[in-house]
Amino acid sequence: MIIVIQCADRIGLVAAISRLMADKGLNINGMQEFVDNDEDLFFMRLDVDQTDGAAEIEKDLRQILPEGAIVKVNPVPEKKIVVLVTKEYHCLADILVRNYFKTLGATVQCVIGNHTTLQDICSRFDVPFYQVQAGADKEAFEEKLVGTVNQYEFDYLVLAKFMRILSPDFVLRFPMRIINIHHSFLPAFAGASPYRQAHERGVKLIGATAHYVTNELDEGPIIAQQIIPANHSHTVQDMVKAGKEIETAVLAKALKLVFDDRVFVYKNKTVVLE
Amino acid sequence: MIIVIQCADRIGLVAAISRLMADKGLNINGMQEFVDNDEDLFFMRLDVDQTDGAAEIEKDLRQILPEGAIVKVNPVPEKKIVVLVTKEYHCLADILVRNYFKTLGATVQCVIGNHTTLQDICSRFDVPFYQVQAGADKEAFEEKLVGTVNQYEFDYLVLAKFMRILSPDFVLRFPMRIINIHHSFLPAFAGASPYRQAHERGVKLIGATAHYVTNELDEGPIIAQQIIPANHSHTVQDMVKAGKEIETAVLAKALKLVFDDRVFVYKNKTVVLE
Amino acid sequence: MIIVIQCADRIGLVAAISRLMADKGLNINGMQEFVDNDEDLFFMRLDVDQTDGAAEIEKDLRQILPEGAIVKVNPVPEKKIVVLVTKEYHCLADILVRNYFKTLGATVQCVIGNHTTLQDICSRFDVPFYQVQAGADKEAFEEKLVGTVNQYEFDYLVLAKFMRILSPDFVLRFPMRIINIHHSFLPAFAGASPYRQAHERGVKLIGATAHYVTNELDEGPIIAQQIIPANHSHTVQDMVKAGKEIETAVLAKALKLVFDDRVFVYKNKTVVLE
Amino acid sequence: MIIVIQCADRIGLVAAISRLMADKGLNINGMQEFVDNDEDLFFMRLDVDQTDGAAEIEKDLRQILPEGAIVKVNPVPEKKIVVLVTKEYHCLADILVRNYFKTLGATVQCVIGNHTTLQDICSRFDVPFYQVQAGADKEAFEEKLVGTVNQYEFDYLVLAKFMRILSPDFVLRFPMRIINIHHSFLPAFAGASPYRQAHERGVKLIGATAHYVTNELDEGPIIAQQIIPANHSHTVQDMVKAGKEIETAVLAKALKLVFDDRVFVYKNKTVVLE
Repeated sequence: MIIVIQCADRIGLVAAISRLMADKGLNINGMQEFVDNDEDLFFMRLDVDQTDGAAEIEKDLRQILPEGAIVKVNPVPEKKIVVLVTKEYHCLADILVRNYFKTLGATVQCVIGNHTTLQDICSRFDVPFYQVQAGADKEAFEEKLVGTVNQYEFDYLVLAKFMRILSPDFVLRFPMRIINIHHSFLPAFAGASPYRQAHERGVKLIGATAHYVTNELDEGPIIAQQIIPANHSHTVQDMVKAGKEIETAVLAKALKLVFDDRVFVYKNKTVVLE
Repeated sequence: MIIVIQCADRIGLVAAISRLMADKGLNINGMQEFVDNDEDLFFMRLDVDQTDGAAEIEKDLRQILPEGAIVKVNPVPEKKIVVLVTKEYHCLADILVRNYFKTLGATVQCVIGNHTTLQDICSRFDVPFYQVQAGADKEAFEEKLVGTVNQYEFDYLVLAKFMRILSPDFVLRFPMRIINIHHSFLPAFAGASPYRQAHERGVKLIGATAHYVTNELDEGPIIAQQIIPANHSHTVQDMVKAGKEIETAVLAKALKLVFDDRVFVYKNKTVVLE
Repeated sequence: MIIVIQCADRIGLVAAISRLMADKGLNINGMQEFVDNDEDLFFMRLDVDQTDGAAEIEKDLRQILPEGAIVKVNPVPEKKIVVLVTKEYHCLADILVRNYFKTLGATVQCVIGNHTTLQDICSRFDVPFYQVQAGADKEAFEEKLVGTVNQYEFDYLVLAKFMRILSPDFVLRFPMRIINIHHSFLPAFAGASPYRQAHERGVKLIGATAHYVTNELDEGPIIAQQIIPANHSHTVQDMVKAGKEIETAVLAKALKLVFDDRVFVYKNKTVVLE
Repeated sequence: MIIVIQCADRIGLVAAISRLMADKGLNINGMQEFVDNDEDLFFMRLDVDQTDGAAEIEKDLRQILPEGAIVKVNPVPEKKIVVLVTKEYHCLADILVRNYFKTLGATVQCVIGNHTTLQDICSRFDVPFYQVQAGADKEAFEEKLVGTVNQYEFDYLVLAKFMRILSPDFVLRFPMRIINIHHSFLPAFAGASPYRQAHERGVKLIGATAHYVTNELDEGPIIAQQIIPANHSHTVQDMVKAGKEIETAVLAKALKLVFDDRVFVYKNKTVVLE
């Protein structure tokens, strides 16, 4: 059973929480906590040997925690996701493979593409695929998108190289539930064609960033980032190719962290309790 | 004030310890703990806002901890070290610079070399240097070594590229107090000429390992390791040169961890609470 | 057109080769060369704008190169491979996905498993799967293996987590044509259960190594290696899980290098001209 | 003897150059070349067994190279540098140590600080130190700076954590001769307080960039970059501390590349022939 807590900090919180666990005879397999002293915020993730009684544990926890605490006991152990794609396969295929072998920590409900390029790979894995074409009318496009995703229950929308910018209206419907992979080490090279920008600037490393989507383009809370070395001999196409490998790796890592309930969001930042 | 605890594990330990801190009105700035479930061992490092009353805190802690617990409250905040060298300057110079600028977390008492190559750099930093020549008679050499180091109070002996193997007798005098930097990613390429071995084996990465010295050559508990890429174009000399950079970095990192009381040793392994 | 050359070194080789290319009006897009001065060996990889006349170019090259030169002009551009597996899916799935999307640089002819665990994923990608059960009689097992692989034309046998040791007899049939992924940073932790060994030794990094298979277990020429940090909190299972990610990445990278004709073998080492 | 060439590209350049070397009986120990196909530019670095006849080799090379070629035969083997600092010691101390042990590839002529904090470390290494105070009058400050540096012959001005922005006038006096270390992975977090910016943005990696100084703040050609992982638990101060280690490493690496004549500049980018 996983327990996550986010609340105002005060002296004795760890003692009180771990005392409660001990009183209930719960063995703690793992406990990570973090205090942001600037913001006086307390974050904790507990992994305890227990499978039932979630409601009671949550009630008891609330009694010892400050007003306004966010407490989740036994959050959905198997997340549900909808994946949005365009034409590039690398992130999607990685997700489909892990989904198929039950190592994703989530179930892919369906995949939506604005092209049909990736329809076949989905059907090979028996995952429903829907085409929603992106035309000139963005509002109509997003309406269809919302209609399609809402046919499914899901915890997160994963933008696995979905090369369209979503409107604030769309984003607001799913706050902190949309996860994107951007192909640069943000905040460098936000926006379009980051590898072209990187090539022009002559950087000696290229990267990828997985982040929650907010209204500000490529400005949402960062979950995971990684880089690889680059040099003058890399063309833009070489960077694109090399970048795909880390985009895949970074998105996989970020999803794993999110699905394991290790990521806490506040102030446009994340606390990742590993 | 730093508090380190190593003891048998049992349910409620964290609760009891953090309760004690709360009762004493001590604010916990940082707390890292680890439980080795295979060995039922508990490790904790606390950083609390307090400067006095160490003896009483230790007494109170012992009352709530299992028999045989190792408890250190306010361990020596500024370690003292003696550095042993041969001819290579890179690790020693790094230590001397940090020592001079008071960022080492320890004070260098003296440097002992079996050659005089590094005497001048020591004198430039006003650090005493002693030559102890290594002749055919190892016993006599080590006796002189012991005699020299024992003129000083010290917590650790740091072998900063000291290219001699110390006898079990010598090592036993300073258990878990001798720290060595070995120029390979152990356990690969233990013993002599690791870069030559690496070159012959055609590895694609080379590394360095900082570890406590035990009787088994290059087999003591590992504190820190790091690697850098290598390839066919590197000669042994290129590897030696590139290796010096990571040897310096890895030893610096390991020393920082040890001097900050973040390293716990058991079963020929370390727990590093960062 | 790719041209690879491996021969004894002598002054003027680069001049002679590039003069020949210039005389033929061939534009050189990329040229990498390496000289092993200890062994007096010369290695070169050329990428030229040309699609035909391979035989003539090879003939002309041989006239200016030392006796005994290995020259390949326009080597098989699309390699054929047979993949051997046991139960773990990660490396195989990565290969199947790249194969399906035509980015592997090779075509998977078939997959052979000593278990049927991975049969379904192969059939989803329309790749033939054969079970060859490994019983007590190793000779019989390998005979069946040889019989099965020989139904296909192939350039390389890829051991994608094939957890059986092949006999010298088997290996000798396919010299420098068998590529293995070993789950440690060789030469550390050769043989069985490398993660268990790594856990016991308390290393601070774990790795993976792709190498050609020779008669010496885990001692063949290394093609690619990579590591990730590890620490005391990692159980063996954690290491296994984290390790799968780099095993996949390292094997993918090694295969790409081999399929691009960038890997030269000599003296149990590789030269990788990137 | 090192030979560097930068010129317009044309077919047969490598052949012509290596033929010339062969004709002169010069043995090539190392040759790296790069062609920027977009710009039709050719770059080459040769390392040949020869110590004299530089002028003649240069003349002969010019005859076979396109008009306007930049050719340097036997460029200054031991560069001379002037180092500018403020208060932080880490980069300067690293340079002084390498200078003292003759592994810098350059000689430090003098150090100039706008504070006296680092005077003592310089005097310990017998390196002249000058204070040039930065007051309200920037023009006067830079005039004094120019006056001081011009007392010495030097190839490069190294800004080793010199926390002042130099005016275009100053920069123009020393085009592509001023090297700076910036404490972020540019182009992210240019300008002041990059670690504070990084902390606020919640990035998962921090970095350092060594670059030539041009009129655009932190926009000059990048020579070397590196990053280290960061996370939510790092305060700005932690980032500053961790950052110093890579700032030191990145500047050291960049200087080595520049002093070895491996860095070519064009179009606000560098080609680094390693």
